[in-house]
Amino acid sequence: MDLDEHFGDFARRDWERYDGAATVRFALIGAGWFTREWALPGIDRADHTEATVVVDVDAERAEALADDHGMTALTPAEFHDGVAETEYDAVYVCTPNATHLEYVETAAAAGKDILCEKPMEADATRAAELVETAQDAGVSLMVGYRMHLDPVVRRSKELIEAGAIGDVVQVHSNMSQRMVAELEGDASDQWRLDPDLAGGGAMMDIGIYPLNTTRFLLDADPVEVSAETGSTHEEFADVEEQVAVRSTFEGGVPVLFTANHNASHDSFLRVTGTEGQIIIDPAFFEREDRGLEVRLDGERHAIDVTNVHQLEEEFAYFADCVLAGRKPEPDGEHALLDMQAIEAIYESAETGGPVTSIGPN
Amino acid sequence: MDLDEHFGDFARRDWERYDGAATVRFALIGAGWFTREWALPGIDRADHTEATVVVDVDAERAEALADDHGMTALTPAEFHDGVAETEYDAVYVCTPNATHLEYVETAAAAGKDILCEKPMEADATRAAELVETAQDAGVSLMVGYRMHLDPVVRRSKELIEAGAIGDVVQVHSNMSQRMVAELEGDASDQWRLDPDLAGGGAMMDIGIYPLNTTRFLLDADPVEVSAETGSTHEEFADVEEQVAVRSTFEGGVPVLFTANHNASHDSFLRVTGTEGQIIIDPAFFEREDRGLEVRLDGERHAIDVTNVHQLEEEFAYFADCVLAGRKPEPDGEHALLDMQAIEAIYESAETGGPVTSIGPN
Repeated sequence: MDLDEHFGDFARRDWERYDGAATVRFALIGAGWFTREWALPGIDRADHTEATVVVDVDAERAEALADDHGMTALTPAEFHDGVAETEYDAVYVCTPNATHLEYVETAAAAGKDILCEKPMEADATRAAELVETAQDAGVSLMVGYRMHLDPVVRRSKELIEAGAIGDVVQVHSNMSQRMVAELEGDASDQWRLDPDLAGGGAMMDIGIYPLNTTRFLLDADPVEVSAETGSTHEEFADVEEQVAVRSTFEGGVPVLFTANHNASHDSFLRVTGTEGQIIIDPAFFEREDRGLEVRLDGERHAIDVTNVHQLEEEFAYFADCVLAGRKPEPDGEHALLDMQAIEAIYESAETGGPVTSIGPN
Repeated sequence: MDLDEHFGDFARRDWERYDGAATVRFALIGAGWFTREWALPGIDRADHTEATVVVDVDAERAEALADDHGMTALTPAEFHDGVAETEYDAVYVCTPNATHLEYVETAAAAGKDILCEKPMEADATRAAELVETAQDAGVSLMVGYRMHLDPVVRRSKELIEAGAIGDVVQVHSNMSQRMVAELEGDASDQWRLDPDLAGGGAMMDIGIYPLNTTRFLLDADPVEVSAETGSTHEEFADVEEQVAVRSTFEGGVPVLFTANHNASHDSFLRVTGTEGQIIIDPAFFEREDRGLEVRLDGERHAIDVTNVHQLEEEFAYFADCVLAGRKPEPDGEHALLDMQAIEAIYESAETGGPVTSIGPN
């Protein structure tokens, strides 16, 4: 394995197909910090994408953003009524988890393609409904797993598929942050503490990164989970502050991961094979450069990675698929399995025992 | 926290008490590769220690080693008969796990202090008997957890105790090696594949490092374990080739670890606190320099560690305790809890469910 050659054109867009001049116009559903600080800049940076409409329950917030960026501001009611429907081709849904479905229903009925944030919904039942809604309407549904479009992850996946580290035998991963400390003085993330809106705590919010990125890297799904959840702060009385999972993936591979809203900022993913290792650290925070180390034959190779704007990649990829007439991935069915695995994780934490029924009930 | 100051005199022997000129003379029980390549050189390097006797089932091997190092060679029968009993003050037991007890019984009856390799015995029942044997005879029993004497671990433990990384909230760890590949052409480790002699596979042999080093660093014990074991090679038909454990330590701290005899050579221990992290990587192999990184306030500090000869430290410490008249640690009771936790891990892997009864039945 020639690592230099493999990692040579690091940020290559292996997914790029479209070579025309058209543009996908987006309605942004939800004008919170992630939309403002990451999605909108991503759309601005990407070719073939444009943000034309913004929808928010906070009309003032929507209008301010619309003014700044030459967009049309809509209330949710106006959006559902089809106002300005001709101004956008697709929607980007970035609202509290439990409200994704209602926006997707309207968008699908109007024939708009959909890029929906993860977790896809507040529970697996609503997520399944969301998938079905898009399927029935014949529109594209991509779920916003930005790690899939990151070249650090794509190049790592290729390396694994090429057999560079042999057979994968185990994975350790973590995503943690100091949300308790950061919550003080910032109300915008408060919905994440509400089980009705969020569907859960650390597992839904950040534990989904170790889970889903491992699924993508290994091209394998969990078949058994054993988990515990816990909280030490009153803010997390209703959703879990931390989660620890021992899962088994297809092929019998143990995948152990943690997520914690009250821990030192950290994210890593460590894939061990029979012949080597891939260590992504930092791994998951959009606002932090990713790092990559490959270990082969006892040698540590610190890879000189190209850090991309993950949301630029995500929107560019989505538009490329839409314009080239193919279905974007990760699709709804892929994302649904995360929701089902998360429910199994919650069930295991509740009952104490392992859960093996992951998937449609 | 001034890290430079904390790590200034890195290899300081905070345990050193004895300032006399006496020497502890050891009978080495078991002349396998670890005794020859690590224990004996450790004794040679340390002050106040001397190897005077060697016992092995292979008389030729014992005599060859005795000739090279000016020792007396004994067969096990001769040892049990008290031959050359006046030539040693203490024994170092490094034989297949299931044979530790018989040597400890003879040594204890002769009033010799004991340094016994880990795992202490092949199961918790025999381990408890071993502890009782030493207690009843009033001799010192230390179990050979060499990580406890490594300054990388001792300085890390002090840092945790000083609160430098806040409250510990989770631990990830692994120890893995390519034993399957290394077994070819080397018969000396074959007993590790025999459940009667070894008591188990990867968990007993290398999984004990993540487990025990975490216990030492956190000064806390596991209260619940959920585990799976597996094998993919015929050599490991009778003992597990790999193990994955999700445990909960006192205080509710998740500790997730793996051990694997068929994976890329790797060892790490990653302690995450509310305010920082300590990452030991490499962590556990005696033949490999340890590495240490401390992360505080988003800054990564690669610590300039002093790598010691772990067996020199271990024997020097043991002799220091014996000569200064105090009990060495880790003692038998500490080690017994590992054996009980390992049995709980095997029980969990067998039944599928978590096991909370860790300790005396």
